[in-house]
Amino acid sequence: MTRVSTRKTEVSGVITLLTDFGMADPYVGIMKGVMLGINPDARLVDISHGIQPGNIFEAGVVLKESYAYFPRGTVHVAVVDPGVGTSRRALVLLADGHFFVAPDNGLLWPIISKQPTNTLIHLTNPAFFLHPISNTFHGRDIFAPVAAHLALGASPFEMGNPIDDPIKLSIPLPMEHGQKLKGQVIRVDRFGNLITNIDVRTLTQYAASPLSNVTVTVGPMKIKGISSTYADVPTGKELALIGSSGFLEISVNQGRADRKIDPCGMVVGTSVWVDKTGA
Amino acid sequence: MTRVSTRKTEVSGVITLLTDFGMADPYVGIMKGVMLGINPDARLVDISHGIQPGNIFEAGVVLKESYAYFPRGTVHVAVVDPGVGTSRRALVLLADGHFFVAPDNGLLWPIISKQPTNTLIHLTNPAFFLHPISNTFHGRDIFAPVAAHLALGASPFEMGNPIDDPIKLSIPLPMEHGQKLKGQVIRVDRFGNLITNIDVRTLTQYAASPLSNVTVTVGPMKIKGISSTYADVPTGKELALIGSSGFLEISVNQGRADRKIDPCGMVVGTSVWVDKTGA
Amino acid sequence: MTRVSTRKTEVSGVITLLTDFGMADPYVGIMKGVMLGINPDARLVDISHGIQPGNIFEAGVVLKESYAYFPRGTVHVAVVDPGVGTSRRALVLLADGHFFVAPDNGLLWPIISKQPTNTLIHLTNPAFFLHPISNTFHGRDIFAPVAAHLALGASPFEMGNPIDDPIKLSIPLPMEHGQKLKGQVIRVDRFGNLITNIDVRTLTQYAASPLSNVTVTVGPMKIKGISSTYADVPTGKELALIGSSGFLEISVNQGRADRKIDPCGMVVGTSVWVDKTGA
Repeated sequence: MTRVSTRKTEVSGVITLLTDFGMADPYVGIMKGVMLGINPDARLVDISHGIQPGNIFEAGVVLKESYAYFPRGTVHVAVVDPGVGTSRRALVLLADGHFFVAPDNGLLWPIISKQPTNTLIHLTNPAFFLHPISNTFHGRDIFAPVAAHLALGASPFEMGNPIDDPIKLSIPLPMEHGQKLKGQVIRVDRFGNLITNIDVRTLTQYAASPLSNVTVTVGPMKIKGISSTYADVPTGKELALIGSSGFLEISVNQGRADRKIDPCGMVVGTSVWVDKTGA
Repeated sequence: MTRVSTRKTEVSGVITLLTDFGMADPYVGIMKGVMLGINPDARLVDISHGIQPGNIFEAGVVLKESYAYFPRGTVHVAVVDPGVGTSRRALVLLADGHFFVAPDNGLLWPIISKQPTNTLIHLTNPAFFLHPISNTFHGRDIFAPVAAHLALGASPFEMGNPIDDPIKLSIPLPMEHGQKLKGQVIRVDRFGNLITNIDVRTLTQYAASPLSNVTVTVGPMKIKGISSTYADVPTGKELALIGSSGFLEISVNQGRADRKIDPCGMVVGTSVWVDKTGA
Repeated sequence: MTRVSTRKTEVSGVITLLTDFGMADPYVGIMKGVMLGINPDARLVDISHGIQPGNIFEAGVVLKESYAYFPRGTVHVAVVDPGVGTSRRALVLLADGHFFVAPDNGLLWPIISKQPTNTLIHLTNPAFFLHPISNTFHGRDIFAPVAAHLALGASPFEMGNPIDDPIKLSIPLPMEHGQKLKGQVIRVDRFGNLITNIDVRTLTQYAASPLSNVTVTVGPMKIKGISSTYADVPTGKELALIGSSGFLEISVNQGRADRKIDPCGMVVGTSVWVDKTGA
């Protein structure tokens, strides 16, 4: 296995990990052990291992929200892989100056669909894998060693062949329904904030008027106007604002918005309506 | 932005993180990405991200308990920030040879109040922030980049102006009531140990006699004497001892002391009485 | 304290941590602070801090499953230590090219029993400890500093005296009962997979015939044949396969096998029967 040394200047040496493995089992630690065996100087950062088991959509959303805050040339390994052991492909994606290593199951689609200039490699070169390759833990046997080699400066073009037909993910997009804009809750965070799929650009194009006039309706909550910060409303009161990732969020000042919808937490997927007429 | 290179010898290159963000959301990973973009060699260590959301007191107690075990010159970022987006200030504290970066909401008061020789800087220099600054995630936009620059050797005096009126935190102190010393439970750990606010010095000054004579009463437990270690009592039996941080703790050998008070876990704040008469 | 510099080439500089401390309390962070104070360049990797409090067996199984994926010369600190503060010894184990630091309570027995060529040192040299030594947190005061010194290249022979009578752990082994092979569930992972103590070698020696003929019975599940991967069976259906660590596992494709046995999760210890007659 030769390495293209000219690539070495482009990598940051940072590898991020995003999985649904949790932190109690040793699987994440084992992946890190494999990576440090190949690349002793890799700097390893956890994005999250708390993705709901098998939830490809959640992983894709979180990865897209996070990656750009890392230095260019970072390698992001994302393993939510309910199809491990089947013929689903393993991929490297080069997009927006970052490397992504993941199964071909839609996880990378939120990034691919926003970054039309990208390169996708189907990982086939066994020289970059750990052997024997198990049928149940490609995070350890394929994704971790590939990421470690990438972060050393190995070229993804040595690792397999370019493809252009990745698996797509059905991403719910906000849409106008009559006078209203309809979106949905795509993530609930630890604070009970509801992150929607309505980005600030879609919202402002739709509203075409001061955002103070719109109403946001989600479950039993009807909120007037878009706030700047939590403290714009009294403690315990709900509000809508543009969150730190540029998407409409519904929160409760010093409280939990998710509990207003469903105390049992079945909140992702709930419809969110924005009405510019203020009705 | 200039850096005062003469400070560089004082920093350890280690940055610790303490938040209420949890580990499932990507917020901690995003902060680390921002830090590594500025300071690729920073060594990042999590103290805890499991602080109860918004619990400034818990964060302050944990930070004070932890920081001194890190090398001098370490930068400690602590973000429990229910007032994010309001006019509350962002601070750097220099105390006891360590740097602390946190919102001005009382979180740093347990350290400030014990370290009268300290320097506090109100962070105002936008050259050290990530732009645009959101209204909801100053961990990413202010605290992380400031910490990364400090760990590189940047001077806090370039980052803003000294202040001397930080927000204080109401810290419950142990007090003598008649013949007894009254304290309270300030933290419960994963093992169900009850950490109190009664430090060993206060206890020994109060008792002024062999500690084997005192009784400790908390909830339904009445404990005779102060043990040296868990195994001083039979399995399943409660005991009091001086914990690893120098505070009185109530434990159950191979069991959980918190369950003896309230099976639902409402234990923080419970009164703890020490009686030197042995009554 | 002198260091044997000739050992330095053998260490990887990586230190892993495995505890039952959880991630919410600051105890793991404090151990890392102590280690970085001694060894600023140590690369610290968490294997798990989610071991059930006091469960030495679980920690031993997880450590044995994980360590070999790290580079040779890695130092593995494992602290599940219900006997902290008693006269139980603290140990360093050298085995299979790795260093292990742990209390002498059986935690290391799964490794020792598989690696007959090993060296065990009883840690007695206070020069390698943090002082004062508490009675309740040897992770901080003994195990962390010893690990940091080992990863720097210090010789374990300077740290204490060789012993050959470590505490053993009762490890349930698979056994033939009549025509059948009987094992048990020793771990349940985040996905609800049941990891058994039946290793692939014992299974194939027992079956002495195509594995497609065997039946595996656990709780209410009776499974025909050993699958290669989850997708060999329809979604929601149970299967048996050889897991990524080389042990028989029982899984449900896209589901949870543990829920088929006990919805409350009391699954570890459940008997697993393999029958080569296919009955």
